[in-house]
Amino acid sequence: MKRKVRVVLYGVGVIGSMVAKFLLEKEGIEIVGAIDVAKDKVGKDLGEVIGVNKHLGITVSDNTTTVLSKTKPDIVIHTTTSFMEKVYPQIAEIVKHGVNVVSTCEELSYPYLSSPDLAKKLDALAKKHDATILGTGINPGFLMDTLVITLTAPCQKIESIQVRRIMNAATRRVPFQKKIGAGLTIEEFKEKIEKKIISGHIGLEQSIAMIADALAWELDRIQVNTVEPVVAKKSVKSEAIIVEKGRAAGLKQCAYGIRNDKKVISLEFQAYIGAEEEYDAVTIEGAPTIKQKISPCVHGDIGTVAMIYNSIPKVLNAEAGLKTMKDLPVPSAAVEDMRKYVKERETT
Amino acid sequence: MKRKVRVVLYGVGVIGSMVAKFLLEKEGIEIVGAIDVAKDKVGKDLGEVIGVNKHLGITVSDNTTTVLSKTKPDIVIHTTTSFMEKVYPQIAEIVKHGVNVVSTCEELSYPYLSSPDLAKKLDALAKKHDATILGTGINPGFLMDTLVITLTAPCQKIESIQVRRIMNAATRRVPFQKKIGAGLTIEEFKEKIEKKIISGHIGLEQSIAMIADALAWELDRIQVNTVEPVVAKKSVKSEAIIVEKGRAAGLKQCAYGIRNDKKVISLEFQAYIGAEEEYDAVTIEGAPTIKQKISPCVHGDIGTVAMIYNSIPKVLNAEAGLKTMKDLPVPSAAVEDMRKYVKERETT
Repeated sequence: MKRKVRVVLYGVGVIGSMVAKFLLEKEGIEIVGAIDVAKDKVGKDLGEVIGVNKHLGITVSDNTTTVLSKTKPDIVIHTTTSFMEKVYPQIAEIVKHGVNVVSTCEELSYPYLSSPDLAKKLDALAKKHDATILGTGINPGFLMDTLVITLTAPCQKIESIQVRRIMNAATRRVPFQKKIGAGLTIEEFKEKIEKKIISGHIGLEQSIAMIADALAWELDRIQVNTVEPVVAKKSVKSEAIIVEKGRAAGLKQCAYGIRNDKKVISLEFQAYIGAEEEYDAVTIEGAPTIKQKISPCVHGDIGTVAMIYNSIPKVLNAEAGLKTMKDLPVPSAAVEDMRKYVKERETT
Repeated sequence: MKRKVRVVLYGVGVIGSMVAKFLLEKEGIEIVGAIDVAKDKVGKDLGEVIGVNKHLGITVSDNTTTVLSKTKPDIVIHTTTSFMEKVYPQIAEIVKHGVNVVSTCEELSYPYLSSPDLAKKLDALAKKHDATILGTGINPGFLMDTLVITLTAPCQKIESIQVRRIMNAATRRVPFQKKIGAGLTIEEFKEKIEKKIISGHIGLEQSIAMIADALAWELDRIQVNTVEPVVAKKSVKSEAIIVEKGRAAGLKQCAYGIRNDKKVISLEFQAYIGAEEEYDAVTIEGAPTIKQKISPCVHGDIGTVAMIYNSIPKVLNAEAGLKTMKDLPVPSAAVEDMRKYVKERETT
């Protein structure tokens, strides 16, 4: 039997901890190290940090080089921040150790948009050190880009694409409900938007750019509208928050890919307490027109953990370089022993 | 500008002719030759054979070697029969010329099931001659396999998968309506099943095997049920056929992937006159459960032409060998000039 896939976690926050707990249940894969800069985590056992009642024998460290040199992982699961400029030095350091990376960094899902130069540098670095880099997640990474691209495959012509994700925030984590402004007055909501305390969904531009790239559509521009409150038409509530009529139940954000003055790609994201139907819908106007819907919508946290985990064998099996979801083989679930999905590798 | 992609058609029947007409409208790609063994086609101009009022200057030939040697195409679009044993010598001959192949042969969509030895031989031959081979289409090739595999990507666990394709045959070609037995008495229908005049859908086994392979599920067996008539509950009709109550309006076929005595993959295909809703549905029972529906269902002929055409750049850009849809990058539409999708190649 092949040896287990060795994983180091880089970032042990909310998502990193969820990934860690999931990894502990799986076969053919093991956590061999954990990196985080937070002072309240460094030096502690990973089991304590992620909140499982078990000593895992892995001490969270803030020294990337030491951890990677000692543990020699196959892949790093990177969950720190959303922006290329911030993750670049982190990922560059990992790759210099010849280690593959799968990251939840939203901008990395299609890095050529915000940071084409950093993307080129990462690609060159990855190739030099024989490593593969992928940014993914449920969104960006799947629902509003990879799945949309896949659904264009049976089309002879395409006029326009509309993608819509409607989430009932009541079923989500309380911090998420607060993050989307549920319960605020409209004035408070707008103030928090201005102060960037409420920032909306990150990744809509990346999803649009990736779809356009797959179709070889040259866009004039990508327009991202200001985040708007979804105003409660009646009083609605979650277990944690009561939203009175007229207050913000959550947020709505739209983004467009514009070509020849036409909105050829439209993405709409809504997350609010009280949504009557939760769904992910894709409409491709063309020949044939494709009307697709996933109902209820895919749960963000569960989906993100799955996307990250299921991408591991795709990244390990890929050639070296900076990849996006559309460059890799058809995504799929790795529900059995992880070793069944990974091609033969050198043993370290 | 790069030179156009050069295509030879191998098989100029119903599907081959539809592909040819579509190719004539597209930019960056050209038909440079046509092969067919039918005596009523050989020697005629392709324009006449496919029924366009235009002399295309391409004479249909039954000599593969002559056509490929003279025209030096990038790819052959192969649309002859459904079975590996019959297409093997045809595809082997094409590949020996170092030419890529995309084929509608249903068994070739996942060739390791019916003909593992021939598949191995084709793969070796393709690698030897630096060519890539792909079997695809709308079904098998997309709706009941590639799309299903893609939809597993956000899953942490999977218990079972159900896929259903319901078509209203009234909206399809008349030969298709006859092929599925619409209008026959139940006795006539059963007789035609026995005599294999009605054969049902080909490819359900291949779709199941491809899904199982993607998930690394070892199936005990694949069970394909006998084709059954869909009995008209009231009189229904298409423009061409009236189906009286109690007669066959079309057919239904089910197939199962069985693992530990459980139907873990279920495919159901129904095509009949009078279906109230036409749809393609995928349900993945797991964490999370994914309930997806495309409504109306994707039109078979339009979708097959699109899948074949849109696969051309994927095949041209792939490494050599026998590939299946799940091995290639995320499928997508090639709606612009074909040259935009094809990586730099040597010019001949």
